[in-house]
Amino acid sequence: MLRTAVASLEAAGHAVQVTDLYHLRFEPVSDRRNFTTVHDAVFYKQQLEELHATEHHGFALDLERELQKLAWCDVMIWQFPLWWFTVPAVLKGWVDRVFAMGRAYGAGKVYENGPFQGKRALLSLTTGGGAADYQPGGLQGDLAGVLRPLHRGILQFTGFTVLAPQVVYGPVRLSQAEREALLDAWAARLLTLAEEAPFDVGAY
Amino acid sequence: MLRTAVASLEAAGHAVQVTDLYHLRFEPVSDRRNFTTVHDAVFYKQQLEELHATEHHGFALDLERELQKLAWCDVMIWQFPLWWFTVPAVLKGWVDRVFAMGRAYGAGKVYENGPFQGKRALLSLTTGGGAADYQPGGLQGDLAGVLRPLHRGILQFTGFTVLAPQVVYGPVRLSQAEREALLDAWAARLLTLAEEAPFDVGAY
Repeated sequence: MLRTAVASLEAAGHAVQVTDLYHLRFEPVSDRRNFTTVHDAVFYKQQLEELHATEHHGFALDLERELQKLAWCDVMIWQFPLWWFTVPAVLKGWVDRVFAMGRAYGAGKVYENGPFQGKRALLSLTTGGGAADYQPGGLQGDLAGVLRPLHRGILQFTGFTVLAPQVVYGPVRLSQAEREALLDAWAARLLTLAEEAPFDVGAY
Repeated sequence: MLRTAVASLEAAGHAVQVTDLYHLRFEPVSDRRNFTTVHDAVFYKQQLEELHATEHHGFALDLERELQKLAWCDVMIWQFPLWWFTVPAVLKGWVDRVFAMGRAYGAGKVYENGPFQGKRALLSLTTGGGAADYQPGGLQGDLAGVLRPLHRGILQFTGFTVLAPQVVYGPVRLSQAEREALLDAWAARLLTLAEEAPFDVGAY
């Protein structure tokens, strides 16, 4: 899915930047390593350190790189396996550390006023179970409900326009021909992301 | 909240084990470090490695310790700040690594048949925003919906009976007297967890 996305987008003339969190051995745990600056050396409150770092260019290099990719992109795609109804810890940690107060939200800049307004975001995921498990009343329940905290609480919260998730259900049980058909459909969809209508993330 | 829970439970004669993930510098990223055994040295599929480790006592010590705590406890309580509509990455990584196929679920042992049936679990959390933000129609939406993937997809999935979450909204804006009253209520609630009715985690 990742390689297909990069190839499809680049073949159409788009520029792509990839963050491979495992390859980078990205650190998911938030602490003072997030910063090169110190606001309060005694009492560590992360949001206050983030605001201070925003004012004083004090984010650690691994975070600053990601913040600049976020500023640069028109579309952000997360490719991940659904683990325990959400993203793997390393991707959650990328959010915890990179989506810093002052840069990704804050001072009333949330939801419609979020810093990433005008950008689009899309969750591309694989599941263990089949599609029937993720319907309303299915074993796991409606996938839209499973994904809503990600869609609403992270993506929309920071201003992204959310597109429909790209879901491959149970790839381990698909034939090679089925997998290739899904990759082709993914490659084709990627070329029209700019024209897609936003996804209704649901309400509660 | 953590210290109050330990003190209240121990004063009533209960035994308590604490896993402080930051203090332990718990590793949240799943990979071959999860295991002392190897099922397939070429193609890494985590669930197959987990099943192999289950049969051959092959979990790394940091995971085996946690698995034994899970087997030992009657009630599991997570104390965490709500970050991005879910747990911080280090706690998600504790689930990703410890809740292994073969030990925490698998082969039809999910939900009502999960390995942790008979045990109770409770999310104890603090939020940034106030209670009004977490009502249906509020800025963040109904907290029960926010927490449902944790309640349903992790706790019920592995067999736990879920109790109502213990929520402290916006502690940073509470007075010392208000905080102390909330700690007292928490200390009191802990002594009757065995008699509480299960929490309705909602459906979708």
